[in-house]
Amino acid sequence: MVNINKNFSKLQNNYLFSSVNQKVSNYTSSNPNAHIISLGIGDVSLPLPQVCINAIHSAADEMGNSQTFKGYGPEQGYEFLREKISKYDFKDLNISPDEIFISDGAKCDISNIVQLFDIKSTIAITDPVYPVYLDSNVIYGRGGEYNFDSNFFEEIVYIPLSEENCFVPQLPKEKVDIIYLCSPNNPTGTVLDKTELSKWVNYALCNKCIILFDSAYESFITNDNIPHSIYEIENAKKVAIEFRSFSKTAGFTGLRCAFTVIPKELYIDNIPLIQLYKRFKSTTFNGVSYITQKAAEAIYSFEGQNQITNNISYYLYNAKLLKDSFEEMNFKVYGGTNSPYLWIKTLNNMKSWDLFDYILEKANVVVTPGVGFGKNGENFFRITAFNTLENTLMAIEKIKKIF
Amino acid sequence: MVNINKNFSKLQNNYLFSSVNQKVSNYTSSNPNAHIISLGIGDVSLPLPQVCINAIHSAADEMGNSQTFKGYGPEQGYEFLREKISKYDFKDLNISPDEIFISDGAKCDISNIVQLFDIKSTIAITDPVYPVYLDSNVIYGRGGEYNFDSNFFEEIVYIPLSEENCFVPQLPKEKVDIIYLCSPNNPTGTVLDKTELSKWVNYALCNKCIILFDSAYESFITNDNIPHSIYEIENAKKVAIEFRSFSKTAGFTGLRCAFTVIPKELYIDNIPLIQLYKRFKSTTFNGVSYITQKAAEAIYSFEGQNQITNNISYYLYNAKLLKDSFEEMNFKVYGGTNSPYLWIKTLNNMKSWDLFDYILEKANVVVTPGVGFGKNGENFFRITAFNTLENTLMAIEKIKKIF
Repeated sequence: MVNINKNFSKLQNNYLFSSVNQKVSNYTSSNPNAHIISLGIGDVSLPLPQVCINAIHSAADEMGNSQTFKGYGPEQGYEFLREKISKYDFKDLNISPDEIFISDGAKCDISNIVQLFDIKSTIAITDPVYPVYLDSNVIYGRGGEYNFDSNFFEEIVYIPLSEENCFVPQLPKEKVDIIYLCSPNNPTGTVLDKTELSKWVNYALCNKCIILFDSAYESFITNDNIPHSIYEIENAKKVAIEFRSFSKTAGFTGLRCAFTVIPKELYIDNIPLIQLYKRFKSTTFNGVSYITQKAAEAIYSFEGQNQITNNISYYLYNAKLLKDSFEEMNFKVYGGTNSPYLWIKTLNNMKSWDLFDYILEKANVVVTPGVGFGKNGENFFRITAFNTLENTLMAIEKIKKIF
Repeated sequence: MVNINKNFSKLQNNYLFSSVNQKVSNYTSSNPNAHIISLGIGDVSLPLPQVCINAIHSAADEMGNSQTFKGYGPEQGYEFLREKISKYDFKDLNISPDEIFISDGAKCDISNIVQLFDIKSTIAITDPVYPVYLDSNVIYGRGGEYNFDSNFFEEIVYIPLSEENCFVPQLPKEKVDIIYLCSPNNPTGTVLDKTELSKWVNYALCNKCIILFDSAYESFITNDNIPHSIYEIENAKKVAIEFRSFSKTAGFTGLRCAFTVIPKELYIDNIPLIQLYKRFKSTTFNGVSYITQKAAEAIYSFEGQNQITNNISYYLYNAKLLKDSFEEMNFKVYGGTNSPYLWIKTLNNMKSWDLFDYILEKANVVVTPGVGFGKNGENFFRITAFNTLENTLMAIEKIKKIF
């Protein structure tokens, strides 16, 4: 008799954004004329850069011609794309194309990577945190029991992010094996500078643990002293895996392309992790669409770089407008300068979901309740700068009327 | 200190097709002028149908326009595609769009689905078998120890496929929880008729186990009495998950689109499995490229159906040529009529890998050694009908010279 994986019953019923969507959908079905503006899920609004569209047309024609048709591609991704990433995204950092694995999304990579490590590994995540880090480990069996008093999984080490530590994660006192770090951070929009990130790399080197570094938002960094890659830190290649995505950089949320870096220097139990990952990918994955990879390659052209830089500036301008406006309304705002996310404290200790309901019902604007990212997110909410300028301005105007 | 998942060390060093590619690559580097024809990996050779190319162009233009741009799509796939699948692929079987999950490949679905079930579930696979069924479970920890005497994993139940049983799997004597079935079969090219498939469904109903039914090759079925879907068998919806793919049907190997069916009637531990799968997909996946889904939708047009039917007939004609030719050379051939695969017994008890080397070196043709699919595959090899007619004819000519 087959049974289910009982770890599923320990998860919250719905993935955070599914719950948000459900609430919005309930509201709109009772209020069909409401014009809802979403500053919730981190989805982009600008169309794909023209260089990508051109590349897709051209690749589609190749796929329709028997002389140039491409079937299964390499599981690790085409070399033409891995070479561009190596040359442009990791200039001066010596990450070779062999160390880059193209995928259909950072969410998939981040949730699958946990299978490479011993089931008994102790996981450290920040609180608040991007829910995928936690949920994928809970499904896999690393969460232990859920404690309803503390609202914590008993076998997860939580690293608090709070106003007291300016949302900078502090080294844990407990022994941990796998550490998730995200900078610029989702959801708090805050960043780790070289000094702070070095502490974590040194900790991982001393304690032989591994850092899973999510830098999906690195292209929003404007300050010079903030590392775009963890490999800017000395010896990080011995302890860190880095995840990146074209979703926010180039607007690929609907096209699906990302990549993971596993440096050759990264050994666990004397085994090069890159070898294990190759075996894993070839067993469980058949590569990313050729057409999508050609679209991704196109952004590394001179024109492509200009187009994505313009898009990022557009979103950063939205972020600045949002930050200024919420500060004018006397909200305490974090993030929003090197990041597309703003992490905002509610007024008068209002609960996250109460604020969500209030803004949805009174202003028809969707935000993400901070508590959905973890217990420490209570009394906060996250908004994103990814909507259009028009919608962002309209949302600001509507919110100003209710605060 | 972090450790690796030790189950990786129990796997063969390389995924079967990686080993084949490595051998071919070694051969061609010493013989740079050799013209190699592959009848090995099941990759298609005909270009994408024109309806798909047109759909890609049109979807690309939508993605380049701010009014029609699509960001994150639904994790389960767009309804426009799920509706077409429901209506055309499951006509009369009452599979609703809600029960269909679009993915970027059946290989990903099949290797991820194992996470839904109790880690202690006993797995039954045939021998020979598509390696992904076994490897994904070994990585997950269900293989137990590898026994070097028997060449079997101690906790896996192997169901022998052999000439004695005409490659029709027989019900196991041991208690099992999860059964993998594939018809038309990869690698043997043989099929399960309604009577045989009903035995398995009844077994699963009686023993409360689940069948993972891989019907990636159903479009190659030409005989009327062979089920295309397991749901043609009464009550199968209570026990079976079905995996399908556009890879072989429409030549999507380089485009990446497939789907999994989880019927609403499928309950495990009183929980609807569809609910669990939704939670799983929303946690670990962000949907398939909109452009790819539009390409998949296009094959359900009248013109699209004609184009894919022509392509399948083309490959089935190759299969017939291969079958006739190998039989003329006195080989015993299985499959190749309702399937793109032929499963051929070597002559004079030659070992699979010896035959692989012999055909590669003497005829410059690549086949897949049967033993790579399991111990019972020894003395067999698999060839595919997916190359072009020209290459298939040339391969036959070259092979005829050496036998």
